[in-house]
Formats: sequence, structure tokens, C-alpha cells
Amino acid sequence: MEPSGGSRDARPAVTPVAAVLPAGGSGERLGGATPKQFCAVQGRPLVSYAVRAMERISWISDIIVVVSPENIETMRSIIEKYGHKRVMIVKGGITRHRSIFNGLKVFAENEFSNHLLQKPEVVIIHDAVRPFVEEDILSKVVMAAKEHGAAGAIRPLVSTVIASAADGCLDHSLERARYRASEMPQAFLFDTIYEAYQQCTDYDLDYGTECLHLALKYCNTSAKLVEGTADLWKVTYKRDLYAAESIIKDNLSQQVCIITNVKEAVAQVGFLLHESLKSQIKVEAVSICLSKNDSHLQNIFSGQCYNFICVNDKKYAIQETQQLVDMLEKSNIPLLYPVVFILVHLDISENISFSIGMEELTRIKKFAREVKKKNILVYGLLIQYK
Amino acid sequence: MEPSGGSRDARPAVTPVAAVLPAGGSGERLGGATPKQFCAVQGRPLVSYAVRAMERISWISDIIVVVSPENIETMRSIIEKYGHKRVMIVKGGITRHRSIFNGLKVFAENEFSNHLLQKPEVVIIHDAVRPFVEEDILSKVVMAAKEHGAAGAIRPLVSTVIASAADGCLDHSLERARYRASEMPQAFLFDTIYEAYQQCTDYDLDYGTECLHLALKYCNTSAKLVEGTADLWKVTYKRDLYAAESIIKDNLSQQVCIITNVKEAVAQVGFLLHESLKSQIKVEAVSICLSKNDSHLQNIFSGQCYNFICVNDKKYAIQETQQLVDMLEKSNIPLLYPVVFILVHLDISENISFSIGMEELTRIKKFAREVKKKNILVYGLLIQYK
Repeated sequence: MEPSGGSRDARPAVTPVAAVLPAGGSGERLGGATPKQFCAVQGRPLVSYAVRAMERISWISDIIVVVSPENIETMRSIIEKYGHKRVMIVKGGITRHRSIFNGLKVFAENEFSNHLLQKPEVVIIHDAVRPFVEEDILSKVVMAAKEHGAAGAIRPLVSTVIASAADGCLDHSLERARYRASEMPQAFLFDTIYEAYQQCTDYDLDYGTECLHLALKYCNTSAKLVEGTADLWKVTYKRDLYAAESIIKDNLSQQVCIITNVKEAVAQVGFLLHESLKSQIKVEAVSICLSKNDSHLQNIFSGQCYNFICVNDKKYAIQETQQLVDMLEKSNIPLLYPVVFILVHLDISENISFSIGMEELTRIKKFAREVKKKNILVYGLLIQYK
Repeated sequence: MEPSGGSRDARPAVTPVAAVLPAGGSGERLGGATPKQFCAVQGRPLVSYAVRAMERISWISDIIVVVSPENIETMRSIIEKYGHKRVMIVKGGITRHRSIFNGLKVFAENEFSNHLLQKPEVVIIHDAVRPFVEEDILSKVVMAAKEHGAAGAIRPLVSTVIASAADGCLDHSLERARYRASEMPQAFLFDTIYEAYQQCTDYDLDYGTECLHLALKYCNTSAKLVEGTADLWKVTYKRDLYAAESIIKDNLSQQVCIITNVKEAVAQVGFLLHESLKSQIKVEAVSICLSKNDSHLQNIFSGQCYNFICVNDKKYAIQETQQLVDMLEKSNIPLLYPVVFILVHLDISENISFSIGMEELTRIKKFAREVKKKNILVYGLLIQYK
């Protein structure tokens, strides 16, 4: 995959970067039989959202998903169904730390993988049950890890934290402002975290949960703490599944991308459309030359946007539409939800008769029928524009 | 209000108990203009759910809602619209602790209220943004407060808590198992918490948030910590509003109450219905004698149930239905959502001709039209039962 325009700025100046996603938890706090990472949110397992979030980012070379032995087949079918790329499944251990350690071993120990993967300079560790991680925070923790050896996202505490005495009564309250919740993603120099795991006692492997702690304890590496956004929260309870579902639904309906070519009249219509829509919906407008392989557009396609308005010069309508639909298909997003594609054709030439316009529209209608099978809904609109 | 059957067991052996609900927060973490306690969830402000949760409990005598001066009118209209009872609005201070202190003063200082309320032995403090508090946990903290002077609900930590050093790097991680998140409700002997607030420094009134800490610091009272349920969480972010909405929707559709009279044949049908429904939906079955003022049924009516199946002997159909609908109306629940009332009339007598049955049904239809205006949807079903 090409590095995309949007990520170029955020791309950490290190290569390569890999990601390990521990997904071996049993989810007992959720109160259901299905481990939470495999619970469906809008019909798709949670882990697939997290994989997708990593996969969208071109500078992450390998994504290691660590699952418990009984879920390997499930995970394999998820990867196939949703067309995930650059993903390797690794068998987990009996605790979270042992699972992460197994995930790291595929870069360092031959016997843990059919083919030893290239050892990354920095490795991201992220939970399979945090579906909304954005490139910005991933980039920040990676760059901070490169500088400090370790880094992790943090959030303000929502509740006061207290220590209880042996009799079940309050011993003391912590001053909330001095403490933070340690969240994911975290990132580490590979050699640092791998050494920490190699030196780690059985007790820590069994009872610890926090990677930052291991880096500090075994490698004397004090992690840089990076303020994360509210959407990094971990799906823990059933209410979190509800919340995730609502957020995804919101994303589906509340964002639109307006695509125009670079021709002045066309770009102007795109601009006016953007102005009139922006108070009601999140609008991204791109003005592109489709003959070039536009990386910014690719980045949008691999994002969370499912609604597109494509304004173009009628003359090139079919060509441009075909190109955009090809790009959309490659991005895999129509696999999950229907993509709505509204084509606005501006007839800016006075020389072309209406009948030719009709002919073109008939071709577009045929085209729309075809792509509907691929879960892309194309609607056309012809506007005489002087 | 009569003490209800369901709460009688759980009723703490202290009287009176009052509740103070600080609702003065600005909700800046939610990212909206409306403070979160006034955000609508399924059309109803969050604070109204919390008030309702207190009001349902017969052994709570007074409910003090503390709001910032600019929201007093809003709060007044909420109380009126949703028919809340036993609620007094008090003007908040500039911080959470100052607001709670103001709330407590109405029991102790004449100038803070038009009429001084009876000083409670125990006072519950609960957030307006925790809508799902149940009687069980309220009862537990009240009883623990009676014994220990103070008590509060706690939950396991979801994330590891860390302390950061001055350079923004990790100083140390807390061992998760040793700490807990301090949640609400909390309860205190009134004299204890009031004394703590009276002695409280300006610094603590301005920067502290935790009532348990004040009781410990100023009264040397170490609060009893009570394990709470997952639904006690605080609505903090937008995702929490989504979650609250989904939980409420679930409650609307996933609970049904089967009401029968005490006649054997009727109770038997109720039992069979209960058996066949219980695997799909939360079912509460009550067998009652409607001539008595049944407190258990009243308790259900003031709960979260919106679906009722009433099985009765055709002979008494109209009478019983009228009585039940009156009780429902008094409970105020139809104010919020439509209540579905399915009447199953068993014709167990062979002497009554079908025409008389029809006559009765016509009366019921007329009745159904009338109560529909009150947001109660009555459906009738006549079954010949031998």
C-alpha cells in the first residue's frame, strides 16, 4: 500500500513499525459467553474494527493478533470475511502478558512462526477491544517510544481511586489530579519490551497487566505518557458495546465526502455544497485530479466515510466514476456497509444535445446496477449548469 | 406513599433517610452546551432518571436536588413535567462540595430553606448523572453508614492507574488489585458529614470532590466500602449517553409483568405464561387480590416495567382493569413512554352466552379508547378456557 497523503505528515520517522493486538481475553466482565473481542457490533466482531484501525495505517507493516487456541479458527474466518491484510494470528498464552510475549516472539524466535517476520524498530501494543484508535495517537506514541524507549496513552481519571484497608473500609483516597488512567495504544522500542519480557518473572507474567510497568521494572525505561482522546476507552461492559454501536452508526450517517475534479466550475459547485452542508454533517471536501493516484482520497476511502457526493464534468462522468468505484472496492469498505455514491453531473457545455446526455445516463444506470452487487449504491443527478 | 412489599425487606432500619443529588456540573467533558444532567436520554433529562430512582424508594423521605442558579427554572419544569414528588431544589455553589454542603444545610440551617426539613439520621449522596441506581445498593450503603458513619459504593478499576513524574513520564503504576474506583451512591450519618463540611477548609471545598475523604479527614470516620454493580457508572462522555439510551430501550422492551388474581385457574394460566416467556424476556409474575391495596404491585408500577399482561376471570374484567389502570396512572410511568397492557380474559364459566361476552368486550374497547389518551395502550384477548 502506498503511504497515504493524510498519514504522510503523521508518519513517524522510524521503520518498520509492527503492532501486536492481544485478543485472548475471556470477557467475563461482559457477562456473556462470547469473549468481548468477538462480540458483534453492527454485525461485525469488535476485533475486526481494531484490526481495521491498524491496517488503515500504511506505516504499520505487520499486525499480530494473539488469540487463545480455541479462537484461532474464528479469527481466521474473520480475517477472510473482512479481507484483512498484513495480519498474522498467533496462539496466546494463559495470561495477557504471556499472550503479548508470544506475539513479540514471531519477530525474534524462529520456532514461533513459519517465516520469521522482519524485526520492527518500534512495536505498538493495542487492545482488540478498543475499536476507535486513530492514526494521530498511534503516531504520537510511536514517536515518543522512539525517543524514550516506551510510551503510552493516558486519560484523566473519571472516578476517584481509593485504597481499602483490610477491614473493607477506606484507607485513603488518591488525589485525582496526580494520577491518570493508563490506556492503549502503547509503543516500545522492540528490543526494550522484548528484553523486559525475557527477564520477566513468572509472577509478573501471570499477574501483571501493564506493559509500561514491565519496561520500567526490567529495563529501567520510563515511558513517556501521551494524552489520548476519549474514544480510546476499552469495551469492558455490555454498555460499552451499546456505546460502540451508537458511535459506529453515527459515523455511518454523519459524514460525507465531496469529491470534485480540479476544473473551476466543478470545484466551485463542490465548494458551495460544502458550505451548505457543513452545519448539519461532517463534510470532507477534496478537489482532485483523478488521472493521478490521489493518496489523500485513498486515505478517506480507508477511513470511516460511507457517503460520497462526486461532482463532475459530465463529459468525463463514466470514466471518473469507474475510477472512484474501483478505488472504493480496493479499500474494502463496501464489504461492511453499503456505500452511497451520489454522482452530480454538471452539464457545462451548451453544444451537447440532451439525447447524448440521456445515452450517458443510461450507461450510468447500467453501471449502477452492476456495482450494487458490490454493495455500492450509485445515484445520478444531471444538472444543466451555466 | 406506602412502604412497598419489595422494599420492605431491603428497608434499612433507620428513619428518616434523605438524599442529596448534586446536579450543578457543567459537563464540559461531554463536549456539548447542555450540562450532561440535563441532556435528554430517550426524550427525558438524565437528572429525571436519577430523581425517579430515589423517588421510587419509599423510605427516602426528602430528595434535595442541587443545581446551579441558572438551571433552577429548568429543574423546576422537569419536576413538574415528570410529576416528581418529595423533591426540593436548592441553589448550588461554585464547586461540587459547596453544592453538596448547600444541599445538607436545608436540614440544619433555617435561613437556607422556607421550611426547615426534618433532619435525617442518614443522608445519601448520589450523582444526578448516575441514572440506574437500584434500591439494593442504596439500602446497603445506608445500613453500612448507620454502622460505620460513612459508606460508599466501589467498583473494580477498569484501567491501571499510574502516577506521572514532572517530566511527563511514568513514575509508577499502582497495583490494580489493591485499589478501587470510588463511585456513588454514598451515605453518611447526617451529623458526621455535616460536621465534616462545617470544618472543611476553603481549599478542600474548592478542589476536593470526594465526600468519603472529607469524612475521614475531618471526622476520622473511615467509610465502609460496598461493592456496587456495573450499572452505577457515571455518565461522563457522549458515549455514556448512548449507552444509557440503549439500556433504557432494553428495559422498555425486555421486561414484562404478568398479573393474575388469586383464583386457581387464572393463576395457573399466569404460571404457564411465565414459564413459556421467561427464556426470552425478563418476567415478573404477581398473583394478587386487587381488592386490597397491593404494595408489591405498586412497587412494580413504580419500576421500569412498561409491558403488562393481565390474566383475569372474565366476570371481573372491567373492574380489575379499571383498578390496574388507575394504579398505573398514579405511578406516573405512562407520562414517559406508552404502557402496553394486554388483557387476557378467561371465560371459565359455561353458563354465560357469547353475546354477553361481546357486550363486555365492547365496553372494554370503549375503555381502551379512553385510556389511550393517557398513553396506556390496552389490548384485549378472550379465551374460552375449560
